Amino acid sequence: MSLIEPRTLQGFRDYPPALMIPRERVLQTARAVYRSYGYSPIDTPALELAEVLLGKGGGENDRIVYRFKDHGDRDVAMRFDLTVPFARFAAVHVPQLGKPFKRYAMGPVWRGERPGQGRYREFWQCDFDTIGTTSNASDIEVALVISDLFTALEIPNVQIRVNNRLLLNGLLESIGVADKAVPLLRCLDKLAKIGRDKVIDEMVKEAAVTAEQAGKVLDLCAATGTNDDILAKAEASFDGPPNEKAREGLARLRELLAVAQTAGVPDGRIRIDLSIARGLDYYTGTIYETFLTDLPGIGSVCSGGRYDNLASLYTKDVLPGVGASLGVDRLIAAMEELKHPWMTGGITPAQVLVLNFDSQYLGHYQRVARALRAAGVGVEVYPEVKRVKAQFEYADKRGFRVALIAGGDEFAAGVWKVKDMAKREEASVPEADVPAKVLAALG
Amino acid sequence: MSLIEPRTLQGFRDYPPALMIPRERVLQTARAVYRSYGYSPIDTPALELAEVLLGKGGGENDRIVYRFKDHGDRDVAMRFDLTVPFARFAAVHVPQLGKPFKRYAMGPVWRGERPGQGRYREFWQCDFDTIGTTSNASDIEVALVISDLFTALEIPNVQIRVNNRLLLNGLLESIGVADKAVPLLRCLDKLAKIGRDKVIDEMVKEAAVTAEQAGKVLDLCAATGTNDDILAKAEASFDGPPNEKAREGLARLRELLAVAQTAGVPDGRIRIDLSIARGLDYYTGTIYETFLTDLPGIGSVCSGGRYDNLASLYTKDVLPGVGASLGVDRLIAAMEELKHPWMTGGITPAQVLVLNFDSQYLGHYQRVARALRAAGVGVEVYPEVKRVKAQFEYADKRGFRVALIAGGDEFAAGVWKVKDMAKREEASVPEADVPAKVLAALG
Repeated sequence: MSLIEPRTLQGFRDYPPALMIPRERVLQTARAVYRSYGYSPIDTPALELAEVLLGKGGGENDRIVYRFKDHGDRDVAMRFDLTVPFARFAAVHVPQLGKPFKRYAMGPVWRGERPGQGRYREFWQCDFDTIGTTSNASDIEVALVISDLFTALEIPNVQIRVNNRLLLNGLLESIGVADKAVPLLRCLDKLAKIGRDKVIDEMVKEAAVTAEQAGKVLDLCAATGTNDDILAKAEASFDGPPNEKAREGLARLRELLAVAQTAGVPDGRIRIDLSIARGLDYYTGTIYETFLTDLPGIGSVCSGGRYDNLASLYTKDVLPGVGASLGVDRLIAAMEELKHPWMTGGITPAQVLVLNFDSQYLGHYQRVARALRAAGVGVEVYPEVKRVKAQFEYADKRGFRVALIAGGDEFAAGVWKVKDMAKREEASVPEADVPAKVLAALG
Repeated sequence: MSLIEPRTLQGFRDYPPALMIPRERVLQTARAVYRSYGYSPIDTPALELAEVLLGKGGGENDRIVYRFKDHGDRDVAMRFDLTVPFARFAAVHVPQLGKPFKRYAMGPVWRGERPGQGRYREFWQCDFDTIGTTSNASDIEVALVISDLFTALEIPNVQIRVNNRLLLNGLLESIGVADKAVPLLRCLDKLAKIGRDKVIDEMVKEAAVTAEQAGKVLDLCAATGTNDDILAKAEASFDGPPNEKAREGLARLRELLAVAQTAGVPDGRIRIDLSIARGLDYYTGTIYETFLTDLPGIGSVCSGGRYDNLASLYTKDVLPGVGASLGVDRLIAAMEELKHPWMTGGITPAQVLVLNFDSQYLGHYQRVARALRAAGVGVEVYPEVKRVKAQFEYADKRGFRVALIAGGDEFAAGVWKVKDMAKREEASVPEADVPAKVLAALG
């Protein structure tokens, strides 16, 4: 019989243990932090009716979505993000669940885009949101969650950049160009690359504003200094006192900084940056981006913002909300590049290997292993009676940190040998002392 | 603008928190137990080339699989189980990973079958396997994992039924009807329903065996009594000493019982049952089924067995293995019916709600909440300044167990009120004592 070549589909990949162990750890960490703030888990189907998922259609999503006819000739599509399914979910379930509603969701999404370096057609999203309230307490909490998340991920060197669209929108209204936000922000995006003067030229050309108007936008968005400096300069970029919208934006940012400080977020972790402007058509208030200060070039690894209404496609119930999304795949790629300790472990989730000398001892091997497991230590029992050398090679290759050794002599003496694989040190201890000895070796 | 009806696709469902919190707990429990035995996590894509996933085709899977043309006009299909992708994965990765290789995998699979009571077109599988060894140590371990898994799931009343196909195969060979296993087992399946005599009649008719041959099959498969009785009767169903195949089956079952006993598996949890025979064409050695003794009617919730060669479609490398799969959705349905404590909690993953009296205190609310979170207690801060009654109603509806209350009077006095929501008891304690008081209230 001819063999089938065991290839994956273009743009897709397997997760062997070396990738999967860190991914599970990152997801589990995010899950624990989200839960610790009271966000509840939800899940939605991978497949939805195309009409429900794509709405009126005509957007970018139509081009990238995996769409086909199912067994009942229904027009169906695979989810391309977790936001649209959450909107549909909210329309169905929030009437029973009540408001505010805090949820997280983690799972794969699929996009038939051109794959590339580190970009796949299947990737995980990891979102959390609070909907049903406009309270700034929820906006502030998003920043706290991001901060605690990166602490828990053992990545302390992060900068959470925060903006509020109300500030820019207030300024644009005050200078009579409220409808120009999108082209202006597109030009602003090039600031780092082409400098202030050329951005003003572009704004004049692309957004049909005057050079003076463009200058005011830059005074606001490109303000530098401490967080307080930036907010003071932003305020000063208005002719006279800022209008109500801008005041609201300023007040929300100042409250965020004050609460984060009182709540104990490490100094310098939150940075006001009035130039960030993601989700131009979607986010309307606070905006978040998160950069690794040791690897800023990879871009934001956790981003989000406040939106006015989640589910207008599906319900008349107005559901304002705020949330963010951890870029799991990008983060893991960064952790690999940074040689993060989570990426350099072995490919076994258990730390201890019990060597197998004789199948007559198997019950005792498993008995001692089960005692260690009950103490929270993962223990594998080598399944075959093989040369000791081969079993040690297996232990080294997989990354076991401790080997437990007991053959005829040890059983006769009532002892076990506990071997620290890294130090190559071995000690004989009575069986009752094995757990303590193993725990000590594992630190 | 007309609204889109926010419906799910037929046969699919949302997981709101009330379903998702138990599902996450079950998956996390399975993950922890699998890992504690040294099974490593892997994942494979949801989409594969149809040719790779369906092999030569022509089977049941062709009918139920979701299959379509992707953006590159490739013939692709959604995975319908985790076994076929594991076979493909093993062909690719085991040469690097080495043998034996122990893996678990958890994720959704999709089948376009007729949905029904508790049956969906999207459901989760949760598999673990050891491949690359024929050692009975790995077979035995599967039973230990299942036992520890149900202990960890807080479902002690389970019966793990174990069989070994070598026994029946040995008997059939010895009486000259080795090729009749499949029809004989189909008839045997009706034993409980129609009784011994009618099963013999059916075997004679359907499998073209003699009544005497059928009687021997029943002597073996329907043996009752203690585990030792059953194995003794099985041995006695042979004319003279059993052949090598049957002796191997008997020895493996006896070793499994002995090791499980020494290793400390609770008495009576493992039950030899020579009538179970799942995966007729696939499993070749040990077979496992797991029944909830309080709800046997729902069938097996964790099943598996030993197979001779996992990946023959993809590689010439022979990969024997053994494993089992937890039926997550069936188990959760059973837990609901059994009113399992995990199913009766609230729909918040956090246990503590901090009431919000005034936004000026928000930093302090979050400061105290973060201290509790660092101590492992989930804490939600209510985002809006609302009537106390409304906040308590929210706490009750979501299932918070403790409320923390601090307004102007409390901040002036340096105390917090800690309210046990179930007991409706409230105590004022100094801020430093809040964590201890909360931990005590949560038990």
